[in-house]
Amino acid sequence: MTIALYPGTFDPIHNGHIDIATRAAALFDEVVLGIFNNQKMKNVLFSPEEREALAKQAVMHLPNVRVMTYGGLTVDFAHAIGADTLVRGLRAVSDFEWELQMALTNRALASDVEMVCLMADQEWVFLSSTIVKEVAGVGGNVQNMVPPATAQALEAYFGHS
Amino acid sequence: MTIALYPGTFDPIHNGHIDIATRAAALFDEVVLGIFNNQKMKNVLFSPEEREALAKQAVMHLPNVRVMTYGGLTVDFAHAIGADTLVRGLRAVSDFEWELQMALTNRALASDVEMVCLMADQEWVFLSSTIVKEVAGVGGNVQNMVPPATAQALEAYFGHS
Amino acid sequence: MTIALYPGTFDPIHNGHIDIATRAAALFDEVVLGIFNNQKMKNVLFSPEEREALAKQAVMHLPNVRVMTYGGLTVDFAHAIGADTLVRGLRAVSDFEWELQMALTNRALASDVEMVCLMADQEWVFLSSTIVKEVAGVGGNVQNMVPPATAQALEAYFGHS
Amino acid sequence: MTIALYPGTFDPIHNGHIDIATRAAALFDEVVLGIFNNQKMKNVLFSPEEREALAKQAVMHLPNVRVMTYGGLTVDFAHAIGADTLVRGLRAVSDFEWELQMALTNRALASDVEMVCLMADQEWVFLSSTIVKEVAGVGGNVQNMVPPATAQALEAYFGHS
Amino acid sequence: MTIALYPGTFDPIHNGHIDIATRAAALFDEVVLGIFNNQKMKNVLFSPEEREALAKQAVMHLPNVRVMTYGGLTVDFAHAIGADTLVRGLRAVSDFEWELQMALTNRALASDVEMVCLMADQEWVFLSSTIVKEVAGVGGNVQNMVPPATAQALEAYFGHS
Amino acid sequence: MTIALYPGTFDPIHNGHIDIATRAAALFDEVVLGIFNNQKMKNVLFSPEEREALAKQAVMHLPNVRVMTYGGLTVDFAHAIGADTLVRGLRAVSDFEWELQMALTNRALASDVEMVCLMADQEWVFLSSTIVKEVAGVGGNVQNMVPPATAQALEAYFGHS
Repeated sequence: MTIALYPGTFDPIHNGHIDIATRAAALFDEVVLGIFNNQKMKNVLFSPEEREALAKQAVMHLPNVRVMTYGGLTVDFAHAIGADTLVRGLRAVSDFEWELQMALTNRALASDVEMVCLMADQEWVFLSSTIVKEVAGVGGNVQNMVPPATAQALEAYFGHS
Repeated sequence: MTIALYPGTFDPIHNGHIDIATRAAALFDEVVLGIFNNQKMKNVLFSPEEREALAKQAVMHLPNVRVMTYGGLTVDFAHAIGADTLVRGLRAVSDFEWELQMALTNRALASDVEMVCLMADQEWVFLSSTIVKEVAGVGGNVQNMVPPATAQALEAYFGHS
Repeated sequence: MTIALYPGTFDPIHNGHIDIATRAAALFDEVVLGIFNNQKMKNVLFSPEEREALAKQAVMHLPNVRVMTYGGLTVDFAHAIGADTLVRGLRAVSDFEWELQMALTNRALASDVEMVCLMADQEWVFLSSTIVKEVAGVGGNVQNMVPPATAQALEAYFGHS
Repeated sequence: MTIALYPGTFDPIHNGHIDIATRAAALFDEVVLGIFNNQKMKNVLFSPEEREALAKQAVMHLPNVRVMTYGGLTVDFAHAIGADTLVRGLRAVSDFEWELQMALTNRALASDVEMVCLMADQEWVFLSSTIVKEVAGVGGNVQNMVPPATAQALEAYFGHS
Repeated sequence: MTIALYPGTFDPIHNGHIDIATRAAALFDEVVLGIFNNQKMKNVLFSPEEREALAKQAVMHLPNVRVMTYGGLTVDFAHAIGADTLVRGLRAVSDFEWELQMALTNRALASDVEMVCLMADQEWVFLSSTIVKEVAGVGGNVQNMVPPATAQALEAYFGHS
Repeated sequence: MTIALYPGTFDPIHNGHIDIATRAAALFDEVVLGIFNNQKMKNVLFSPEEREALAKQAVMHLPNVRVMTYGGLTVDFAHAIGADTLVRGLRAVSDFEWELQMALTNRALASDVEMVCLMADQEWVFLSSTIVKEVAGVGGNVQNMVPPATAQALEAYFGHS
């Protein structure tokens, strides 16, 4: 059985993430959506618990996708859950640079974990959690960018009605 | 009458901004240079009042350019002032990525607001507020990058004589 | 009256071009879609006459857009038709580099002609004439990428039924 | 059984290609290395037969990789061989732009074919058939870039001893 | 005698830095590895004293490389030590943008200081202090990325054994 | 004595090339501007003899710069003339990708030849031989982009008076 790890901050999960998770779920037997948590992380809007809850709700219709939170090295977590593949979603160019850097670093740390990049639907190719937070932060409507529960959580956080 | 909104942080306004504002003023009947303000903004050097004052002094020779401060969504502000066009200045590549992302997001939020990108003079094509602050922050001379009032404000802030 | 020139090779015109022409037609009093022709051009599929005919059919619903063919320097043609603005459509990053280079060159040649970049709808942001020809060249269906007359012309050229 | 198509020109196959094919062979039950052929292709050094022969020799140690030549649309060939995944190797940034464009185009043409991008080993991340041909074309040693049979074919072509 | 300044934050020094310093030491009579320090710097892990000590240990085998700490404008420090050349290491694309911006700014501030870019070995071309800190911060092994003293300092900082 | 090779096609030499050659002449004892020639080269406007003559005239005021034509591998030519450094001029981003690729390839072929990148003046940072030929090819004025002899040669070639 092939297990794939789809790691990220997911602060918060948006439609592009869900699109990638859906594609990964069709390619692999089991997909673990891994929410990275680190005490030293700054600029994170939602707590690990909140991010996990929002992600769980967003992918609950995908039977072979589980949501877990982890600290430490991504490749160590991959080993711990028996995953031999890391899934990443590609978006814009600047993204790609960083992905390449991370891929080569991860490979140096654990050559047995393969990295697989998937491309989200064109509709989400420019979407990012940063954009979602920027728009929600000034009262903009993000209902076409995130699932309902995330939209609600963003509204609650920013205090717009 | 066509009204165009030229939005930004303008922290502080520099010669590249003034160049774009001048070009926009030639293309549109009226240009509003909109200074974005948000309580949650970090890493901003000057207060909204200071940024507005510096911008006003920098474009006072352009009769059809007004300076205003706004919060909230950029497209909402555009609607509020009757602007059907957003003006943006293009510089380097990384910039472009972000512009494309913002353009598509704004269009998703308000399809009636067009985005128009102008290119600053070659002299300013690599200039940014970040560079200006870095140079001024270590006592460098920024008189060829910003108007006199901004140079003075930066000197006052960083305490160099 | 403001006249804008939208120059290009248009080999052949596709939906992204039409999108930009439509946006330009809303911003300017008159738009000239200028088809560049040069005896020395290689790798062009359609003759200038064919490209002009396809473009005319594609924008005939836009009353203030005219199609013309020109040789020589783009800024000279702009002067000849009284246009003080060049319109360009932005797509991907590599594109942007070239646009910046052309914009700065054109400005060095004729500083009175402003360059304005518009962004096509997200649906067309990755579309190019090269892609259209590649797909059509191997018998792929391009009906969602180009107007019907262009699709027909491509089919006739490549001999697929 | 999952079948993946790894399409390309392979003119000629080099170590980066073999690296990607090896990674794909570990992820999928069967991999078809599809050599694209088109009468209208220019700038191709080797005939389809030569490219196929070189590729076959290069991957003969990978039991679940087959080499085939195809014309027409890549997604049509994928359908014909029962492949539901396209494999692509990512290298440099300019590459990525084009991949994204192709991925979105292929998806528009056949939404049931998924695109999966793999990253070659750092050693090959900047290698390309163009570089190989440039070096070999001026008598440079390419033995660290391509398998022995390809090196020999390049020497035979360029007439260096 | 030609003196070159190799400026940076070096937080902390890694193998890519050492590679560049080694290449610079072969090109110039004397190289000063200048550690930038600024009271206002945030997000710096190590104090200027620690960064200087780690750098000194890392390049002590290079007889014509000295390590110094400086504040203020880089070009002013270059003048103060008699350096007419700035050395920079190039890595990824996003890097390059910023280098170009800094190069043009430095040139505007002091046209007598030349900027020379060197490329690190392919092995380090994607390495950065940010990556090193990210990996070390979650307990990953960085012994193949940094010299032993730096690895030890990172372990001490992050409290992993 | 340090000898540096500044290789290129120089088809034709333009002000950006001369700027880089001037900077290299200040850094190294001797600079060889090496004009690459290859029977198989297409899309070259001027013959090797013409390119050499134009380059010689353009750098004759730089006493330590010689112009030579070469075929074969660039690093072999560097060895032949005793050069241990390759000089390259950096311009735009897409350029950089290719430079990185070439630098790593050259290093793989001859690790004793160092690559040094210099940045041209901002005025020339977007200039290229391609742009020069495009502008001259349609009768545009290139006198601000190339030295007088090159301008004359382009006029003679394109038959404009």
